[in-house]
Amino acid sequence: MIEIIALTKNKTIETGLTMEDWKKGTYEWYWIDFNAPDDKEVDYLRNPLQFHPLSIEDCLHNLQRPKIDYFDEYTFFVTHSLEAKTYAKEELNLFVGDNYIVSFHKKPSIEVQYVAKKLLGDKSPAKWSQFTVLYELLDHLVDNYIPIIYEIEDFLNEIDENTDNKSMEVLLDDLYETRHRLLSVRHTVVPMRDLLYTLLNTKKLTAVSNKREYYSDIYDHLLKLTEVIESNREMTADIRDSYLSYNAHQSNRIMQILTVITTIFMPLSFLVGLYGMNFQYMPELAWKYGYFTLLGIMATIAVCMFLFFKRKGWFK
Amino acid sequence: MIEIIALTKNKTIETGLTMEDWKKGTYEWYWIDFNAPDDKEVDYLRNPLQFHPLSIEDCLHNLQRPKIDYFDEYTFFVTHSLEAKTYAKEELNLFVGDNYIVSFHKKPSIEVQYVAKKLLGDKSPAKWSQFTVLYELLDHLVDNYIPIIYEIEDFLNEIDENTDNKSMEVLLDDLYETRHRLLSVRHTVVPMRDLLYTLLNTKKLTAVSNKREYYSDIYDHLLKLTEVIESNREMTADIRDSYLSYNAHQSNRIMQILTVITTIFMPLSFLVGLYGMNFQYMPELAWKYGYFTLLGIMATIAVCMFLFFKRKGWFK
Amino acid sequence: MIEIIALTKNKTIETGLTMEDWKKGTYEWYWIDFNAPDDKEVDYLRNPLQFHPLSIEDCLHNLQRPKIDYFDEYTFFVTHSLEAKTYAKEELNLFVGDNYIVSFHKKPSIEVQYVAKKLLGDKSPAKWSQFTVLYELLDHLVDNYIPIIYEIEDFLNEIDENTDNKSMEVLLDDLYETRHRLLSVRHTVVPMRDLLYTLLNTKKLTAVSNKREYYSDIYDHLLKLTEVIESNREMTADIRDSYLSYNAHQSNRIMQILTVITTIFMPLSFLVGLYGMNFQYMPELAWKYGYFTLLGIMATIAVCMFLFFKRKGWFK
Amino acid sequence: MIEIIALTKNKTIETGLTMEDWKKGTYEWYWIDFNAPDDKEVDYLRNPLQFHPLSIEDCLHNLQRPKIDYFDEYTFFVTHSLEAKTYAKEELNLFVGDNYIVSFHKKPSIEVQYVAKKLLGDKSPAKWSQFTVLYELLDHLVDNYIPIIYEIEDFLNEIDENTDNKSMEVLLDDLYETRHRLLSVRHTVVPMRDLLYTLLNTKKLTAVSNKREYYSDIYDHLLKLTEVIESNREMTADIRDSYLSYNAHQSNRIMQILTVITTIFMPLSFLVGLYGMNFQYMPELAWKYGYFTLLGIMATIAVCMFLFFKRKGWFK
Amino acid sequence: MIEIIALTKNKTIETGLTMEDWKKGTYEWYWIDFNAPDDKEVDYLRNPLQFHPLSIEDCLHNLQRPKIDYFDEYTFFVTHSLEAKTYAKEELNLFVGDNYIVSFHKKPSIEVQYVAKKLLGDKSPAKWSQFTVLYELLDHLVDNYIPIIYEIEDFLNEIDENTDNKSMEVLLDDLYETRHRLLSVRHTVVPMRDLLYTLLNTKKLTAVSNKREYYSDIYDHLLKLTEVIESNREMTADIRDSYLSYNAHQSNRIMQILTVITTIFMPLSFLVGLYGMNFQYMPELAWKYGYFTLLGIMATIAVCMFLFFKRKGWFK
Repeated sequence: MIEIIALTKNKTIETGLTMEDWKKGTYEWYWIDFNAPDDKEVDYLRNPLQFHPLSIEDCLHNLQRPKIDYFDEYTFFVTHSLEAKTYAKEELNLFVGDNYIVSFHKKPSIEVQYVAKKLLGDKSPAKWSQFTVLYELLDHLVDNYIPIIYEIEDFLNEIDENTDNKSMEVLLDDLYETRHRLLSVRHTVVPMRDLLYTLLNTKKLTAVSNKREYYSDIYDHLLKLTEVIESNREMTADIRDSYLSYNAHQSNRIMQILTVITTIFMPLSFLVGLYGMNFQYMPELAWKYGYFTLLGIMATIAVCMFLFFKRKGWFK
Repeated sequence: MIEIIALTKNKTIETGLTMEDWKKGTYEWYWIDFNAPDDKEVDYLRNPLQFHPLSIEDCLHNLQRPKIDYFDEYTFFVTHSLEAKTYAKEELNLFVGDNYIVSFHKKPSIEVQYVAKKLLGDKSPAKWSQFTVLYELLDHLVDNYIPIIYEIEDFLNEIDENTDNKSMEVLLDDLYETRHRLLSVRHTVVPMRDLLYTLLNTKKLTAVSNKREYYSDIYDHLLKLTEVIESNREMTADIRDSYLSYNAHQSNRIMQILTVITTIFMPLSFLVGLYGMNFQYMPELAWKYGYFTLLGIMATIAVCMFLFFKRKGWFK
Repeated sequence: MIEIIALTKNKTIETGLTMEDWKKGTYEWYWIDFNAPDDKEVDYLRNPLQFHPLSIEDCLHNLQRPKIDYFDEYTFFVTHSLEAKTYAKEELNLFVGDNYIVSFHKKPSIEVQYVAKKLLGDKSPAKWSQFTVLYELLDHLVDNYIPIIYEIEDFLNEIDENTDNKSMEVLLDDLYETRHRLLSVRHTVVPMRDLLYTLLNTKKLTAVSNKREYYSDIYDHLLKLTEVIESNREMTADIRDSYLSYNAHQSNRIMQILTVITTIFMPLSFLVGLYGMNFQYMPELAWKYGYFTLLGIMATIAVCMFLFFKRKGWFK
Repeated sequence: MIEIIALTKNKTIETGLTMEDWKKGTYEWYWIDFNAPDDKEVDYLRNPLQFHPLSIEDCLHNLQRPKIDYFDEYTFFVTHSLEAKTYAKEELNLFVGDNYIVSFHKKPSIEVQYVAKKLLGDKSPAKWSQFTVLYELLDHLVDNYIPIIYEIEDFLNEIDENTDNKSMEVLLDDLYETRHRLLSVRHTVVPMRDLLYTLLNTKKLTAVSNKREYYSDIYDHLLKLTEVIESNREMTADIRDSYLSYNAHQSNRIMQILTVITTIFMPLSFLVGLYGMNFQYMPELAWKYGYFTLLGIMATIAVCMFLFFKRKGWFK
Repeated sequence: MIEIIALTKNKTIETGLTMEDWKKGTYEWYWIDFNAPDDKEVDYLRNPLQFHPLSIEDCLHNLQRPKIDYFDEYTFFVTHSLEAKTYAKEELNLFVGDNYIVSFHKKPSIEVQYVAKKLLGDKSPAKWSQFTVLYELLDHLVDNYIPIIYEIEDFLNEIDENTDNKSMEVLLDDLYETRHRLLSVRHTVVPMRDLLYTLLNTKKLTAVSNKREYYSDIYDHLLKLTEVIESNREMTADIRDSYLSYNAHQSNRIMQILTVITTIFMPLSFLVGLYGMNFQYMPELAWKYGYFTLLGIMATIAVCMFLFFKRKGWFK
């Protein structure tokens, strides 16, 4: 589906145009949005829009990382939006030219909807230009990252505090899941940060340089998000390492119990087994105090063993 | 609450002004402090102070990392103070213009109090400018980091030496807690260091360049603190890894004891069990020296086992 | 085998030339392909082609990493192709001069075949130059990396989900194998990325600068692939660490079972052994309720032990 | 204590001066050494020496890392010496001006003593300048690091070879100690290296640029030492990781022994227990060959178990 | 021992000169080789050769890392050769001046021998200069690293495949040894790479710039070797981590066997012990089917236990 919003020379907004209506030179500026276009619609990118084959290819394939490409006639942006629930990435491609912006996305984009609505609802649309649309799209895109990353952080804090008293298996799975999500989200945030950095330092887009503080603001958000991601990844590693240390310690405690019990009872069991033998000639068995003497010896062994382990510090 | 301190053209300090009294051009320079302002007071930022919407937004949201933004009329600083007990971060935002400094903080700031007191107590206030206030605030802010970081270091040294003879579980928790705190504090110190670096190398603030040695001094402190933080994080990792190695070794020792005991007594118990059987025809039982021969055999087995493990080095 | 494709001054393609036919100055431009050449053919590099001894040496030895060398007469490229099944690297060496490109490879190259076919099949071959061949070769080379790296990624995802229910030994082997492959592939992709970066930023090849967007596109692919490789290596480490944590936890659970069983039954076995002894004077044996009393005591011990471990949280 | 060495205009060395004798303009150049000064002596820094309050503060506090500060009148150095036995850091502060050097240290400094002795013992002191003193102090300072770092390296080699046959506990403690020392020493060497790098690349001190090869030599030493420290830290990590692997393997071997013994003897003990029961009707007991048959069965079980574990490779 | 090779003004090679014969200005260029010189010979560096004291000191001490020092009269190189069997480093110091090269090494150097032989055997020695000697020495030095590093790589591959069926202890030792060797070799290769990089980018040695492709070739080799070293170190870490995971898994399997055996036989042994007691009144013993009932109960217990563990997945 293609939607066109154009500002006429009389500074009024015109909508509901089709590609057939649209004529190149007649508007102050215009915004063409390719929303999940079919093959015929994609063809408009080639003709009449005449974009470079490489940009068109980038729109159609999914291999892209966020980037800027400068062409003589326009600047081409590949950006990524994050879907709030699945953390899935969606490409939003932008062509920004002298008096137009073309947005291209394979699935409906809430960012595009939001900005279109804002533009159409604005009382003084004449203040807008294609660069305002660009800024609003980038700003809204990045703003949408924030709740996602903070949700991951909250999830991590939950793991750390474990108020739900989850079992260790579940916690370890959650931890692994969190690392996985952070890794995935980082692959969007870091190249977007680099994109904004390039944008801020380029000399090719004067419209951007003139509004430097606005783009700088988006860049600051991305910088902050990158730090949050890195710090959360470090924290997951800390939690896991801390768990490993704790587990190793726990493991030793368990083995100490096992060893104490075994060490005390094995010799005793041997002794009682010894006097359970059926040899015809075993002098101790006939001795009247044999039984009590043996009980005494066994008690002594048990106490000695116990004291030995106590002195080794195993009961601390 | 808003407090205004102004130096009049006659070089005297005037305090207790309200935003209504205050008129833009009548002072040599002035300092407006927004201390936990209410909504009406926040509005002064927009009017009459006329700050850029982006800066005002940065004041009101908490997402910011320390940074500098240059606007035509003023320079905007986001800085962080650290609360001594909870390691909580508080934003202190500063607008520094031609003849004013505006500070904005959502909670009372001990740094602002300290500097205001120092200014009001100074006998020659005419020597001060808005940049002196800026320097004093930054300097005091960073000075307040130092005891916090050294407290963490002391806590870590305590863990290392463990003079309180804490149990291993407590130590591992403390270690994890320390890493957590260091991570948290680093998120304030590193961006502040970058802020100072930017400030030192900018050419936009000549008042700063002229007092380079003073700002350089703050930067040196932040550099040192960053190193202390990094080195303490490395040390926590060292302690944990060292603990893991020690624990693995300990674990082997415990299992060696268990194995020695089991290996010696299991065959012996089997033997005594064997001659405890009630078969009617067991020739050994009838033999007069059967019992003593068996005792001899069992002693031999035990000694051999013992020597075997001794030669393997298990008793070292 | 040597194959020569030349564009004559009349803008027609000529093929099937031999090195003997070939005369230097008579073509618009030409492409000489050394496909698994024998020693005599290799000699053509020295004479009549007159390449620098160092370049020729680089062709013949296998020690090379992807690189560009600038000589007065030509630019020399060492590039690597990846074989889809074995992940083996093959060198493809290119000499690009004023009006020629010479490709040299010790084994048949599917990339060279593909580009030659494309050139010969093109209806307007006059549009091609030696730089078109260079671009097509590099582009196709890098395009061939993509399925290989994505195959590794798929394999890793399979390990992560383990839908085939493979045993842990197999999974660990697979994981190690994946890391190994990623390491190996990275050794091709990273220097190729650096090569493209150099190519993009050099001022020596104007034909490349004029088509910057095309080479930039290859570079973007390599950048993306590098990120995919790094992120997959991180993910393998995450999986392994997660496995280690899980295993340590599992290990404790097993030992807890062992310890509980041992701790409950060892004292009981001792007791029953005790009353299995054959001492002539053991008063308890003669007591009528001895047996039932003992059963009661043993049940009490077992229940207490059980409750002790339950309170320790071992059955959670 | 303050000691002054001055070269008079007549090119003779004068010593034993006091701050009262000393007059600013009368010497070719002079060296004032503040050796563990008392409060009154510290005041001389302010008056008559007139150093900047920030430099004086840096002298008095201990928070400093090695650094250079350029002031209009002089250059201020903070350097660290290492004490050979305790690895303790001592600050040595230097003020180098047009015709003077002032050294300041809170404890007696063997480096200052050494250089003073060398200067006083020199037959042609006229060749010296304050920069010669600076170079000699830095050179000697860094030379003193070398035996300390090599001593740590030797200690590490001892751990690696363990010729003294120390127990594992002691080795692990030693390893941890070594890492700790390396961390501590690195905090001196790395900032000193950065200081020298700054010194080499500054354009403000022509006397240093003219003797570049000398300072470059000190820098090379620091570079080498940094490498030695890093490589030793890597080696400690290698030793520890290697120990962990070895330990894990050892752990498995021990458990294999335990498991083999348990698995062989537990069923046998059960069997002999079985026929030790006192049931009145147990047909096997009455059978003449019962005992020998059981012995045969038990031998078979033991051999089978043994072969089972042998085939599993547990005895390799 | 000192050997001098000189090219006379008549373009002929002269050898067998002594330092006494040698006169500074009479040769086109000359090469003086100090091969394991004695103290008297070392003195020639000072006089008549007049090298800078710092360079001479660098020759005599062993603390040096590969580096270049530029002096007015000459360029001083410290390079390292690797001994093939022991991986020991040997310093080869070079002084390259206007019309001479001086090489200095404390032990006989196979690189120097090789280059001297090549020069003396060359039919047109007039083509050589001192820079040809420099290039040949560097090239040969680096060529000698290659087999050493590839030998380590082969050793690592052997460990990985373990075709010799070595025991785990030996493999772990080999792995540690390999890491150690790689660390040691890296300390030669990395600074040599930096040296070549400096050499390639300097503007002080026009003779080098003119032959840039040759030095660039050496640099490429060093770059490749660095990568091989790093990648092999990563691979050793991978093997070790993989071993640790595998071992942890193995450990669990062993403990599972132990636990299964213990859990099944401990209750059974208890039961048979129970009925081996000698209480006078134990009703079960007198019951005719007591024995067979007990056998049935015990079989049931064993089967239940077995099924319990089977369902837990312990036999997978």
